[in-house]
Amino acid sequence: MIDTSHKSEREDPQAVLRELRDLLRLGEDAQENAGLAPVAGIPESHYAQLRSRLDALHSADVASVLEALPLDERLIIWDLVKAERDGEILLEVSDAVRETLIESMDSEELVAATEQLDTDEIADLAPDLPEDVLEDVFQSLSAEEREQLRAAMSYAEDTVGALMDFDMVSVRGDVTLEVVTRYLRRLDELPDHTDQVFVVDRKRRLIGALPINKLIVTDLDVTVSAAMSTEVMKLHPDDEAQDAAQKFERYDLVSAAVVDRVGRLIGRVTVNVVVDYIREKTEAEQLAQAGLREEEDIFSSVWDSVKNRWAWLAINLITAIIASRVIGLFEGSIEKLVALAALMPIVAGIGGNSGNQTITMIVRSIALGQMQSARKLFTKEIGVALLNGLIWGGILGIVAFWIYGNLSLGLVMTAAMMLNMVLAAVMGVFIPLALEKLGRDPALGSSVMITAVTDSGGFFIFLGLATLFLV
Amino acid sequence: MIDTSHKSEREDPQAVLRELRDLLRLGEDAQENAGLAPVAGIPESHYAQLRSRLDALHSADVASVLEALPLDERLIIWDLVKAERDGEILLEVSDAVRETLIESMDSEELVAATEQLDTDEIADLAPDLPEDVLEDVFQSLSAEEREQLRAAMSYAEDTVGALMDFDMVSVRGDVTLEVVTRYLRRLDELPDHTDQVFVVDRKRRLIGALPINKLIVTDLDVTVSAAMSTEVMKLHPDDEAQDAAQKFERYDLVSAAVVDRVGRLIGRVTVNVVVDYIREKTEAEQLAQAGLREEEDIFSSVWDSVKNRWAWLAINLITAIIASRVIGLFEGSIEKLVALAALMPIVAGIGGNSGNQTITMIVRSIALGQMQSARKLFTKEIGVALLNGLIWGGILGIVAFWIYGNLSLGLVMTAAMMLNMVLAAVMGVFIPLALEKLGRDPALGSSVMITAVTDSGGFFIFLGLATLFLV
Repeated sequence: MIDTSHKSEREDPQAVLRELRDLLRLGEDAQENAGLAPVAGIPESHYAQLRSRLDALHSADVASVLEALPLDERLIIWDLVKAERDGEILLEVSDAVRETLIESMDSEELVAATEQLDTDEIADLAPDLPEDVLEDVFQSLSAEEREQLRAAMSYAEDTVGALMDFDMVSVRGDVTLEVVTRYLRRLDELPDHTDQVFVVDRKRRLIGALPINKLIVTDLDVTVSAAMSTEVMKLHPDDEAQDAAQKFERYDLVSAAVVDRVGRLIGRVTVNVVVDYIREKTEAEQLAQAGLREEEDIFSSVWDSVKNRWAWLAINLITAIIASRVIGLFEGSIEKLVALAALMPIVAGIGGNSGNQTITMIVRSIALGQMQSARKLFTKEIGVALLNGLIWGGILGIVAFWIYGNLSLGLVMTAAMMLNMVLAAVMGVFIPLALEKLGRDPALGSSVMITAVTDSGGFFIFLGLATLFLV
Repeated sequence: MIDTSHKSEREDPQAVLRELRDLLRLGEDAQENAGLAPVAGIPESHYAQLRSRLDALHSADVASVLEALPLDERLIIWDLVKAERDGEILLEVSDAVRETLIESMDSEELVAATEQLDTDEIADLAPDLPEDVLEDVFQSLSAEEREQLRAAMSYAEDTVGALMDFDMVSVRGDVTLEVVTRYLRRLDELPDHTDQVFVVDRKRRLIGALPINKLIVTDLDVTVSAAMSTEVMKLHPDDEAQDAAQKFERYDLVSAAVVDRVGRLIGRVTVNVVVDYIREKTEAEQLAQAGLREEEDIFSSVWDSVKNRWAWLAINLITAIIASRVIGLFEGSIEKLVALAALMPIVAGIGGNSGNQTITMIVRSIALGQMQSARKLFTKEIGVALLNGLIWGGILGIVAFWIYGNLSLGLVMTAAMMLNMVLAAVMGVFIPLALEKLGRDPALGSSVMITAVTDSGGFFIFLGLATLFLV
């Protein structure tokens, strides 16, 4: 459950953040003067002020404040947050920050924080919780909730099951809207994002959905079966989360039912979870493209950062060493015509840029389901590469001729640029398609691979042509 | 208005797409045999089948089918789509595809298509419509709608005004929920994504919001003022769309009110529009990072693609030529020690990779509002760079020594790697912060700039050190 009582335009989290830091820093000054420990150094009046500012903030805003603070200040603020909000704030913060917060809490606090949450939310936290806390939480649940928690924890990360909650309202088809209205009225409040109630038969199989907005405008003596829509979007817990997100986007959904293999209603997915998923997925992809994981943030230690970044640098180092050995093959030619050394990085670099453009294009087309004819694509991209090679290779040929006064060198430059751009185009289409065929994410790794090919390929083509025709 | 009547799990757009293409292709075979024009060559029975398949699809799915087809097939299918769905499908397709569809329609068809749409939707299409069509559409609207259209067209692209629609329900605070319920019942259906009705005073100033789910569970003789929530999220038409999207994400909103400067309710934003905005924004950013614009898709002509891609290649070419001239300064050293030519791209390349990791980190932190202390960040990133430089520079120094049997060369290599990684760290923090300060998007251009610096810088540092100590 997420509280929505604080959503007001009055509190700008950035402004509050500045204010909180001022309060903290005033405390630190006092501490330096008095030689006290940092927390003890914050005057009691500041504490009260900090607390009231925090209480007025939405949990999501508290989360963003915590994320924006360095570790020491973050933990002071975390101590000041009301204990009953701990759970929902832990859900909102990023993985890196969540780890630091959980580390600062003892088992009792963690169990208390978790008790405020729904089972699907506990499942989201579970991977970060210590064994014993999880065991305690499990004991405190009812049999039905235990079953839910077990189910929620069993779904793989990027599946519908991982996005699902159990907070849906369902009714039978043979009752009137009058009855439904009375039933809903008995609930104190409807679960968040209830835009429809699901209609099930005696075996809990989903047979339709009654939009709340339809319920409001329809005669109350009509039966649910007559008023409901039978063409309902049904998701399955093992569906890919990404496909579900695409459906929400395409069909403008607020909620969607999740059914098991025999069509029984087991949960629902809501648009707020989908929005969070889309954002997190995008961020993770952007980080992964530079070989980073979500666990690192700007407050991570130097050593954690080095560990997080090493694998990608190592891969790039290996491809760089290979490219270097390609150059090594032609050291004799470079010794005779040293201009080659100055010109070769241009051929390699522009090939890489051009190849990355092709890859970006293809990866997007795969994501949009536009990939029909690979052959046509190859033809087109090779056409683009030849034309680009002619234009940019031509310009570079002239530049090379102008600097070194060597016409053949200019011609070799132009030819090498064209060939390397064609190579970039072919590999730029081939690499993402091959990754896709192998069941890998074509957005990841493509860029490193194309750069490896265009670097080594560019050096080989340029120095090879030069060796043949110039030296 | 988007129809939701077709949202069923039965139609898989990818499967339909394959089927449509088969039907089209069968037609083409017949045509080749008979020597007829392509469209005429499709047998009448196929037409009927194609049409019924298309009619069963949700408009968003028809849009994705159109996007996945090459131009000739796309236009055949477009001809078969029921005219009354033209408008909403035009809204759903990407810019590149929309252009091709609009080009294939005459003025009359375009006016007819537009008449099905709400004013805020017409405003979305407006930039792509011919002058005369827009004029005709304008004439056909009521005075109030004209005012809305004028307003909607006046807002800049990435503002709340551009996301806003006028489809909200508002009530007065002094009536009972009974009255509200009767009022809503008189509407045939509520606008999509109506999760709350807005409460306004006599001057249409927004004073609160009544969630539909609250309306359902509350006693009907309570007044709206008593039941409503007064802490309502208020957006302004000139707010940045990105900030509004962040609010939807943080506070799990389904809809939010838009008010003018004096607090009068003028429209609303709904979560489906926000989801589309987030997706489009992300895609546009990914494309922009490789110097591409949304107007290009895989079916664009070779010439259009070349035009779309040239600017980025030109910028990269210039930075590559500068790096090349840096090498040119040291041609004498390379002539004496040709191993330098083979090793220098490694120093430059790993510097670039390391710098891109720093930039990705910083850009993300800026987006999350975590940027508090630039000084701390510099210190940390320089620490990471020194450690990484020591590790990778050390390995490379050993590799260089092992290949060339030259200890001093290995030491120069290690030193150059460390220095270039520190340069990359400093610039990796500085560049996005500077772009941010200048009001530019730090996600764009940072990568090109860091590569320019680490290439030229890497060559200069390595060849400079080599000239000082080796030759």
